[in-house]
Amino acid sequence: MKILDCTLRDGGYYTNWDFNRALVDTYIKACNDLPVDYLEVGYRSIPLEGYYGEYFYLPLYVMQRLKSQTTKKLVVILNEKDIRPEHVYDLLTPCVGLIDMVRLAIDPEQFGRALALAEAVKIMGFEVGFNVMYMSTWKNQKNFLELLPKVQGLADYFYMVDSYGGVYPEDVKETIQLVKSYIPAVPLGFHGHNNMELALVNTLVAIEEGCEIVDATITGMGRGAGNVKTELLFTALNAKGKLEVDFNPLSKLVDSFTSLQKSYEWGTNLPYMVSGAHSLPQKDVMDWVGKRFYSFNSIIRALQNQAKGVKDNKSLDTVRFNNISYPVLLIGGGPTVIQHLESIINLLYTNKDIVIVFASSKHAKLFTTVQNKQYFCLVGNEGHRMEDIFDGDFIVNPICILPPYPRLMGTYIPGNVGNNAFELQEYNFTELKIDSHTSIALQVIKEMKPTNVFVAGYDGYKEGLIDQKAQELLVENNQLFDDFIQNENIRFESLFDTVYKIPQISIYSIIK
Amino acid sequence: MKILDCTLRDGGYYTNWDFNRALVDTYIKACNDLPVDYLEVGYRSIPLEGYYGEYFYLPLYVMQRLKSQTTKKLVVILNEKDIRPEHVYDLLTPCVGLIDMVRLAIDPEQFGRALALAEAVKIMGFEVGFNVMYMSTWKNQKNFLELLPKVQGLADYFYMVDSYGGVYPEDVKETIQLVKSYIPAVPLGFHGHNNMELALVNTLVAIEEGCEIVDATITGMGRGAGNVKTELLFTALNAKGKLEVDFNPLSKLVDSFTSLQKSYEWGTNLPYMVSGAHSLPQKDVMDWVGKRFYSFNSIIRALQNQAKGVKDNKSLDTVRFNNISYPVLLIGGGPTVIQHLESIINLLYTNKDIVIVFASSKHAKLFTTVQNKQYFCLVGNEGHRMEDIFDGDFIVNPICILPPYPRLMGTYIPGNVGNNAFELQEYNFTELKIDSHTSIALQVIKEMKPTNVFVAGYDGYKEGLIDQKAQELLVENNQLFDDFIQNENIRFESLFDTVYKIPQISIYSIIK
Repeated sequence: MKILDCTLRDGGYYTNWDFNRALVDTYIKACNDLPVDYLEVGYRSIPLEGYYGEYFYLPLYVMQRLKSQTTKKLVVILNEKDIRPEHVYDLLTPCVGLIDMVRLAIDPEQFGRALALAEAVKIMGFEVGFNVMYMSTWKNQKNFLELLPKVQGLADYFYMVDSYGGVYPEDVKETIQLVKSYIPAVPLGFHGHNNMELALVNTLVAIEEGCEIVDATITGMGRGAGNVKTELLFTALNAKGKLEVDFNPLSKLVDSFTSLQKSYEWGTNLPYMVSGAHSLPQKDVMDWVGKRFYSFNSIIRALQNQAKGVKDNKSLDTVRFNNISYPVLLIGGGPTVIQHLESIINLLYTNKDIVIVFASSKHAKLFTTVQNKQYFCLVGNEGHRMEDIFDGDFIVNPICILPPYPRLMGTYIPGNVGNNAFELQEYNFTELKIDSHTSIALQVIKEMKPTNVFVAGYDGYKEGLIDQKAQELLVENNQLFDDFIQNENIRFESLFDTVYKIPQISIYSIIK
Repeated sequence: MKILDCTLRDGGYYTNWDFNRALVDTYIKACNDLPVDYLEVGYRSIPLEGYYGEYFYLPLYVMQRLKSQTTKKLVVILNEKDIRPEHVYDLLTPCVGLIDMVRLAIDPEQFGRALALAEAVKIMGFEVGFNVMYMSTWKNQKNFLELLPKVQGLADYFYMVDSYGGVYPEDVKETIQLVKSYIPAVPLGFHGHNNMELALVNTLVAIEEGCEIVDATITGMGRGAGNVKTELLFTALNAKGKLEVDFNPLSKLVDSFTSLQKSYEWGTNLPYMVSGAHSLPQKDVMDWVGKRFYSFNSIIRALQNQAKGVKDNKSLDTVRFNNISYPVLLIGGGPTVIQHLESIINLLYTNKDIVIVFASSKHAKLFTTVQNKQYFCLVGNEGHRMEDIFDGDFIVNPICILPPYPRLMGTYIPGNVGNNAFELQEYNFTELKIDSHTSIALQVIKEMKPTNVFVAGYDGYKEGLIDQKAQELLVENNQLFDDFIQNENIRFESLFDTVYKIPQISIYSIIK
């Protein structure tokens, strides 16, 4: 039985395939003293749009460096969806003499195309691994199953990939029997995911049932909920007397990745559990978990909709705003709203025509005494949050605006809002068609055509640690503001200091 | 099949059974909308030495408050080792009408004594749950097994507890068959731990094999590696169509505990995996993981020693210091050593007789050019760390001092140190007999009898977040310094600002 560690390859989903050099050196060096047979160190790929890091393209000098450091067999993987047989010669020539095995990540629906790719790889002299995804769906894929015998003589390993992380030990057994009935002599492999914390038990069952190779990653680092943890698999096999393990290099290595885990937070959580249990793609969940305004709650709701094939709970009326001849005050969730509350309240008391648009309802309860018209942008979990914030003690006529239909993240409207909830027709001030607090707020403002817009509480993150998620949101919001200001002929000013590229004035210069 | 959530009871191992009131309110309220049948909210206990919080003693007003909020059955647990039948009347009278079930945490070796306790509880009208620990050892415990039939008529539930978190699904099946062969009519329960990420699969197997009740905790919060996660069990059963779950209250609840998890970090890790795989107590690991100077590496080593019954790898010579008539410079790992390096080097260059004691080897490489005699305190993983720091480039004659024999955390001595490694005879300047950098350093200093001690790099944690572990270390070190200064007639001065209660002078006042 062989073990393939694919920490850099599968972990790259979290770091966009960039890793600190010292960490990679530690990893390669430690693996020399550990009972792994293969190290999958990344992808090779034709140029794709968008940024992907060092270990997605694996330039020659990186492969050379890794080869010079390791005593193990090295592996790269190709994404079958992007790579055609005609790319193979250029893509893999630099790998000759450095890389031992080339794996192919394959959608079973494209299995015919994948066979041609595998042949092109095999001809160049590499060991070939078939990594076929979505194993939970195979038994209903007759076309794919009938093509299986063609891998004989071509595949050094044929992997079953539990892409959703939702299979149980009995499913692993059943799939192995199914595959063996078509290709009894091809060595099998298993690549598990840990959404349901079943990756270890599934991997052990795969070994018992005759798989000759299994994948694992240090600390389970890998797409979505991640993989079976190499250290857990080692510990289990070692305690059963089946594997010699030196825990010294292992625990040093685990220590190195543990700090990275605290910043990227891979591993399972409730949304990944639900996606695993219902065989829903990890990719969506990974995007959603990355957005701080999608609570687990709203993600679960979206996943349940996907599982049931429901597009959304219900469609609402759209709203038509009269062109208002007043200013809008756009209020975000930043702390300046609290610091300068008195000035904002004063502005609203003395200008009762100003229309308030709450991008976030965070500070809304502070404004229950003002008589200005109030709009709330209900994206993701904001309806529940709004309800919690007001805690039954509602303002008189809140008007709630939801993203355009269909809404992935559900349609929750707080009880007291009643009929005052509407949805947008579309976003047409930007190419960035995403549901977010700021998208809704700016679309509402565009349609209102106010005389001008004041902004409060869009501070950015000036203090403390700013994490990856916050940075991405910052960039996204800034893009939205920029698109709005470029395209719409509406004056736009922040009343307080802000890190966003919005013109600034001082609230104290405009209140009486 | 019934579900018992014991988040507050088992999670209390991390918070010492104190929980923020708002969190408990959220928990109780959310559980009203979730398919749990019982909530175990804590212990009841006679007064024990040491501090244990609100949910360890559960005073009457707390039980009344919980009862007024919940629609579920409430449960408390008694630690059989602390409680005798004669305590029961006083201990449980306040529970009448508030608590539905009383569980007993039982060591199978004390099963006879536990039966008497159970009778005293049963007489008072409570449902009685037997929670019998160490299920992995039962098949060899004939005395215990022969007493089993006596629980008939006494136990409402008889629980198998996987105390070590090391059982596999097949062990669960086997133990259930074993127990059923003695008490076929008693409803069985299962309480799993998650060291090997097998808690879910074990719990599902327990249900399949006929257990009528299973335990779970939100986010798995519980002793050591924790329990099966309530949200994971719900998701699995819900996806199988066996349980209706409202994911709204569930995900809100999970969100609340997730932030607490980030601060206490319950869940499995390499040391818990090893302790689970080898059926070693979680309690030791939990203590060790709490100390920041015990790396996973040294904990694993200690666990391997325990598993093999090895007390320590080897015993060293003890060292006899001549009374030195020079000062000692005690160097810790704080940043002032780097900030003020020039002054320290100057002090050592101009006073070559000063003996350096490195409590931490963190900064030792900065001192390779000085000719002063250098001692290193090798506790836990420090030998490996020292080796990493010097990276082959060793100073000439480092002398390493290890804790007294036997050493729980192993005896690793860097290669180049050769025979210059010794162990202490004992700690005799303090009642706090613990292995730590500071303990060793102070014991060495006591035995050297220097003219006086200068301290550098014992800064405390002035900047940034200071976590629970760091605070405990701070308190512990301060206690050590205090014991030393009170009992030993040696002048002791920090050369830099420090949060420890050590007399301070300035290095700049003593260098030329």
